[in-house]
Amino acid sequence: MPHRIVHMLRAARGGGRRPVMLAIAGDSAAGKTTLTRGLVRCLGADRMTAVCVDDYHRYDRAERAGKPFTALHPDCNHIEIMEQHLQLLSLGEPVLKPVYDHSTGRLVRPELVRPRDFVIVEGLLPLHTAMARACFDITVYLDPPEDLRHSWKIDRDCSRRGYTEQQVRAELTRREPESAAFVRPQRRWADIVVRFAPVPGRPGPLSAELLLRPTIDHPELAPVIAEAARHQRDTALHLRLHRDTDGRPVDALHVHGYVGSDESSIVKNALWDRLADRPGLSAEALGKVGDAGTSDPLAITQLLLLYHLLEARQTGEVRALA
Amino acid sequence: MPHRIVHMLRAARGGGRRPVMLAIAGDSAAGKTTLTRGLVRCLGADRMTAVCVDDYHRYDRAERAGKPFTALHPDCNHIEIMEQHLQLLSLGEPVLKPVYDHSTGRLVRPELVRPRDFVIVEGLLPLHTAMARACFDITVYLDPPEDLRHSWKIDRDCSRRGYTEQQVRAELTRREPESAAFVRPQRRWADIVVRFAPVPGRPGPLSAELLLRPTIDHPELAPVIAEAARHQRDTALHLRLHRDTDGRPVDALHVHGYVGSDESSIVKNALWDRLADRPGLSAEALGKVGDAGTSDPLAITQLLLLYHLLEARQTGEVRALA
Repeated sequence: MPHRIVHMLRAARGGGRRPVMLAIAGDSAAGKTTLTRGLVRCLGADRMTAVCVDDYHRYDRAERAGKPFTALHPDCNHIEIMEQHLQLLSLGEPVLKPVYDHSTGRLVRPELVRPRDFVIVEGLLPLHTAMARACFDITVYLDPPEDLRHSWKIDRDCSRRGYTEQQVRAELTRREPESAAFVRPQRRWADIVVRFAPVPGRPGPLSAELLLRPTIDHPELAPVIAEAARHQRDTALHLRLHRDTDGRPVDALHVHGYVGSDESSIVKNALWDRLADRPGLSAEALGKVGDAGTSDPLAITQLLLLYHLLEARQTGEVRALA
Repeated sequence: MPHRIVHMLRAARGGGRRPVMLAIAGDSAAGKTTLTRGLVRCLGADRMTAVCVDDYHRYDRAERAGKPFTALHPDCNHIEIMEQHLQLLSLGEPVLKPVYDHSTGRLVRPELVRPRDFVIVEGLLPLHTAMARACFDITVYLDPPEDLRHSWKIDRDCSRRGYTEQQVRAELTRREPESAAFVRPQRRWADIVVRFAPVPGRPGPLSAELLLRPTIDHPELAPVIAEAARHQRDTALHLRLHRDTDGRPVDALHVHGYVGSDESSIVKNALWDRLADRPGLSAEALGKVGDAGTSDPLAITQLLLLYHLLEARQTGEVRALA
């Protein structure tokens, strides 16, 4: 099982010398870039490398037009090269990463990527194979309700990629079988499943539900929740034991978007105080949505991921062999 | 010493599963492509992968114009990525190789290269580092007299790359310090140094001098030479013990271009009979120069390299740790 060799090599390198690897998987327009951007800005670009594995397209847009699958299909991507590059990055080695230009739909000159202390890998299929999964310390799957994701994709592709709403809807329909077959199954491999969604009957900003699987050690959240509860009735945070759709037990952390910013701040500050290596971090970068908006549930999600990144960096621990 | 790890990994893979790796190093227009092309055609493209490491340029032509070095300088190339890709190919893994378009001087879409049974790696700097050298079973350096190489480069660059003779001569002058510093020192790492040159006072086709270093086991040539000598006075082949410019002992094999094709054929047939795995080979592909010319010394050089490729494939032996 070659992926075990990667686990062992990474463990042998020790915590101080190998990068901490975070995967953020999810379908098109699920919010990967928004989540990633705040983490990069908070930790600083000099400590953080962000890689999008959608650059590993095997075909450009013109070539894909004649193929029986969409860009979501593993056969449409250099999966074995993606695996190889993830292994190299996870061992601290640089790679010459391919580059797909979304504005022209063409594959262009590759770029040198040298892993810094932290590497975020986001994209459609970063958790598709056991070898790829073996390269990560922390794995996240973004799982918004499909109707919300569709509206996000229509907004983005119409405003920034020059498509009409009708074209985007047709593409979503065309992609649906491959989303179901290849993208969504990655949810089961995530340490944290993040779902931004409105809460029925509660208007206002989106809330977040975070499924925290016992595959990694999460921070002790009970004291945070207790602290928040001392200050108000309607707390920003709830933690509930939950049985996942596959029957496995998980903690479900509810981060409410409808509470006031004062209440959210108590939770944010408490999580901030638990970060292993705060000096040099930029708290203002967290929770930014688009050019102007902010979201406390997003900020709290990012703080939880920062906690895991900094813990992994400090302890140098590799996740349990799985 | 990481290059020892590559030696060990390659040895552990065994002969049947890892590709046989041949390096052909040499300066611009030294004859690398001519030598390579005949080997690829003889073995067949389905068994042979050819890679040019000059594709690992860090800068395109426009960017190089502002740099204090030429394309020959290691700093002008992704040497660490070249090393990484050579390691991967030598272990049988595919790579996504960068591509430099000589006609436009631009870096373009990379291409997937999957190593077949034999991998020929040619270019300016394939033997520049210990790590790169560790990846090869057989190493060749092409060492024509500089005046001959200059005339080859002028012919090629004027007829096929759109330069004037004056431009090519200026570029040769500009490159000379880096040729001396980085390209020519690779000669000492070659198992075989090939020098195509005219013999003074002997008109006609070029002869070849092949320095055969005892770093690999060469075929027994004495019987071949004896067989040729039985048939004529002016044999196509001479083998002489020789002290190299650095004082190290080598065998110098002289392959004369001025003897008739009948005599050369005796040598070619004798070498052909010694090949480990002849079925499927195409002998007609050997010795081709340009579109129409042929050279028996070139054919004999290619046969010697074929001998080493097929022996390495059959025995699975990795060269001595050096």
